[in-house]
Amino acid sequence: GDAHHLQLKTQVMSYSERITHCSHPLTRKLLSIMDKKKTNLCLSADLTSSQAILSIVDKVGGNVCMVKTHVDIVEDFSQDFVQKLVQLSEKHDFMIFEDRKFGDIGHTVQQQYKGGMYKIADWADIVTTHVVPGSGVVRGLKEVGLSRQRGCVLVAEMSSTGTLAKGDYSKAAVRIAHENKDFVIGFICQSNLTKDPDLIHMTPGVRLDVSGDALGQQYISPSSAIRDLHTDIIIVGRGILTADNPVAMAEQYQESGYHAYQELLT
Amino acid sequence: GDAHHLQLKTQVMSYSERITHCSHPLTRKLLSIMDKKKTNLCLSADLTSSQAILSIVDKVGGNVCMVKTHVDIVEDFSQDFVQKLVQLSEKHDFMIFEDRKFGDIGHTVQQQYKGGMYKIADWADIVTTHVVPGSGVVRGLKEVGLSRQRGCVLVAEMSSTGTLAKGDYSKAAVRIAHENKDFVIGFICQSNLTKDPDLIHMTPGVRLDVSGDALGQQYISPSSAIRDLHTDIIIVGRGILTADNPVAMAEQYQESGYHAYQELLT
Repeated sequence: GDAHHLQLKTQVMSYSERITHCSHPLTRKLLSIMDKKKTNLCLSADLTSSQAILSIVDKVGGNVCMVKTHVDIVEDFSQDFVQKLVQLSEKHDFMIFEDRKFGDIGHTVQQQYKGGMYKIADWADIVTTHVVPGSGVVRGLKEVGLSRQRGCVLVAEMSSTGTLAKGDYSKAAVRIAHENKDFVIGFICQSNLTKDPDLIHMTPGVRLDVSGDALGQQYISPSSAIRDLHTDIIIVGRGILTADNPVAMAEQYQESGYHAYQELLT
Repeated sequence: GDAHHLQLKTQVMSYSERITHCSHPLTRKLLSIMDKKKTNLCLSADLTSSQAILSIVDKVGGNVCMVKTHVDIVEDFSQDFVQKLVQLSEKHDFMIFEDRKFGDIGHTVQQQYKGGMYKIADWADIVTTHVVPGSGVVRGLKEVGLSRQRGCVLVAEMSSTGTLAKGDYSKAAVRIAHENKDFVIGFICQSNLTKDPDLIHMTPGVRLDVSGDALGQQYISPSSAIRDLHTDIIIVGRGILTADNPVAMAEQYQESGYHAYQELLT
């Protein structure tokens, strides 16, 4: 009701005001991009051809604050591809977010993060990790990423049916984030988990037009994600990628998400 | 005490007897290998060069029932590498187990499993998955793997300090396994989770000589894993890979694990 809305409103800072309360350089950079470009939209560029990814990212790069990748579904991955992606991130001013969802012991994730074919730590500003292994997974990633000015985002909640990331599990994610604030810059989540301005809330499963898929994904609208779940960033994949006009659709998501943010401020 | 040991003993079947109670072809194949080769040892071949992996696997292939890979730490990955690994699995009669620890929604893990550079479904008999996304992750993998006669193993517990895979989380993993027995053949775990003969228990963090690492990994001995935790398969990585004589060490782990199994039978 109105009282609840009023209460939420009092907690909302504008992106520019929030920057003054933030200490992590990546959080500050992200909020600065969001403020300047008037967008809280992250494109989930889940395509399997490097050329298709670079093409859509170049087209909608001006509409987004982040581009999220699943580099391990790209059929023709090369270091040239990720270098071109980095060039596009500089051209359009967005951050690169590899959604690796690490989930192993610290010793293993270090190698998965910096090594192999992908060398994720070399090009991804931000990576996701599960916290199911305990805090060692974050400490392992941090040893690789901190000196490279990288950050990570903890999967605290998920958008899929029957997820086990809830309750005490999500609380543990918040605790691990607070204990590792030099490296953790936020959460993948479906609700607001902390008032700490340094910790960005990012919500997947956002879509204007449908309510689910056949494998348990559940969707919510951009305005509901920002206004009702009180998230900071909406992550949109298939809603844009499968549209007849992806560029027009990206603009629509950008406007919808940013309008909801503005409404929270007024 | 003796009463507890007696109780455990009555639950233990020999590998050959257990096969007669199993329905899943992969479980039957695995138990048949364990029986024939007298081994419950899985080598975790966590090396970063394909030549180094193929070399150690060819040397200790006779001592193991499975070889576990982290293909995404291999610096010079190629389809030629995995084809050679498949040839070694036929030469030495072991199963290939890619420890991918999937952790995304069903739609995404399908692409990660069959696509990208690795095409894991083409060469890995078995993969691991986290269950934190809910059962959709297993249903997604199953749609790819079932027609290829593949199987998956659920991460029900972990060996790292502070893991969140415990209690209700582990119980949910057991439930998801029982609901998907056409595709799930067991667990990564630190304890015995079910008496169902089709579900194989596999335990990492096994090592003869040390008790932990700097990033929260906790080790137990082979005999303790088999006798006290009542697991079926011991997964050994650094204990063999970093030994002065890895082949002699693999034999020692094989004997230690198999001896503990024999003691349970008598």
